[in-house]
Amino acid sequence: MNKVIETILNHRSLRHFEDKPLTDEQIKTIVSCAQSASTSSFIQAYSIIGVKDKEKKKRLAEIAGNQGYVENNGHFFVFCADLYRHTMIGENEQKNVSPSIESTEKFMVALIDASLAAQNAAIAAESLGLGICYIGGIRNNLEEVQKLLKTPEQVIPLFGLAVGIPVKLTDKKPRLPLEHVYHEDEYEQNTEVYMSQLHKYDELISRYYEERTGGNRKDRWMQQMAGMLDKKSRMYMKEFVQKNKLDLQ
Amino acid sequence: MNKVIETILNHRSLRHFEDKPLTDEQIKTIVSCAQSASTSSFIQAYSIIGVKDKEKKKRLAEIAGNQGYVENNGHFFVFCADLYRHTMIGENEQKNVSPSIESTEKFMVALIDASLAAQNAAIAAESLGLGICYIGGIRNNLEEVQKLLKTPEQVIPLFGLAVGIPVKLTDKKPRLPLEHVYHEDEYEQNTEVYMSQLHKYDELISRYYEERTGGNRKDRWMQQMAGMLDKKSRMYMKEFVQKNKLDLQ
Repeated sequence: MNKVIETILNHRSLRHFEDKPLTDEQIKTIVSCAQSASTSSFIQAYSIIGVKDKEKKKRLAEIAGNQGYVENNGHFFVFCADLYRHTMIGENEQKNVSPSIESTEKFMVALIDASLAAQNAAIAAESLGLGICYIGGIRNNLEEVQKLLKTPEQVIPLFGLAVGIPVKLTDKKPRLPLEHVYHEDEYEQNTEVYMSQLHKYDELISRYYEERTGGNRKDRWMQQMAGMLDKKSRMYMKEFVQKNKLDLQ
Repeated sequence: MNKVIETILNHRSLRHFEDKPLTDEQIKTIVSCAQSASTSSFIQAYSIIGVKDKEKKKRLAEIAGNQGYVENNGHFFVFCADLYRHTMIGENEQKNVSPSIESTEKFMVALIDASLAAQNAAIAAESLGLGICYIGGIRNNLEEVQKLLKTPEQVIPLFGLAVGIPVKLTDKKPRLPLEHVYHEDEYEQNTEVYMSQLHKYDELISRYYEERTGGNRKDRWMQQMAGMLDKKSRMYMKEFVQKNKLDLQ
């Protein structure tokens, strides 16, 4: 196993960091790695905001549901889907780019671009011996995140990435069975096979919790997922995205 | 510079591969790496379809605009946003998960999840000495891709990833200036600074083409982008996604 694959397979989300900021050199390396990712037709439809200001970090932590590690880390990046740049380019080049930019297709392109860049950043950080944690919780209130980070229309902050020197290592949670996620030539057509894979995984996850809590917790994955999805959350998102003139047509 | 960062920074999209299939071991490693990526609240909202069938690959190449490397490579992966799994889980657990699953928020989660996984796969493949190319062109006709790969409702094929032994290396295209993509504490508020960074990049890209074509080509990036976005493309996407009961509310 080479170093790259070792780094990737060794990933776990960390939530406790030393109170020591990343160096400018580390930040630059991480951002350069992000920028090296593939981008759809060279569109580069994302931006990254590094948050150093203590007050802003504190407020972001509150928005994310009082997650302390949003405030306390070595650096906090916010990855944004960004088509504002391309609206400005349209003006500069006197072309009517609005219908394209407002399409669901381009919204998807910007989300994919930003995410590919972010994962490069995450792997680069981990290769430097740093820990990372993605923070979807900033989507609890994007109106406010937008004000805080002064992002223009057509920029959607997607998630944060907390990075820092790890204090406490966590366990790696087992993923879905490979054969359930990976299909060959066509999506699994046999519902019985499909569901039995999920039941098998339920047992695995249940054992995982049981072993780690001395039998106090035995949640199944399907139970967790159904419990989570049974509650509506962030249902304002469509309105927010469309108010920002994306995913409109 | 460590091996991981070297691999990431050395990325370029390759489009010529030897006619030699990946080994099962390589495929398994790449998929395991994909699965090791972070996933929002452990939701794992994606699937990967490996296409080996020659006829299917040929058809996918046509859909992607006659891109030969979609057909001729070591392996062709299709990454899909997948919330079908969670609909099945809702039925299994007798919970009403539909409003959640149909939300723009969860559509975004599935796109982000799939993209983080894909970038891990891309980096893993490159670390094995393989070349990669993302194929957004499959989105030219998702109705047909869906039929070909028999993906159920609430599964959106997002992009392909062609992987194989490289035959011809390509150049690395320079990215946007780091200071244009990376903002500190707030998005760049000075439009003059913002636009001057883009003009500076225009010159860089223009020189890049000029040097590589003996002066035959001098496109600017803004010109390329405006030209591309001036044409509407894949405007059926919203209807397709919503017909598949995603991004509805």
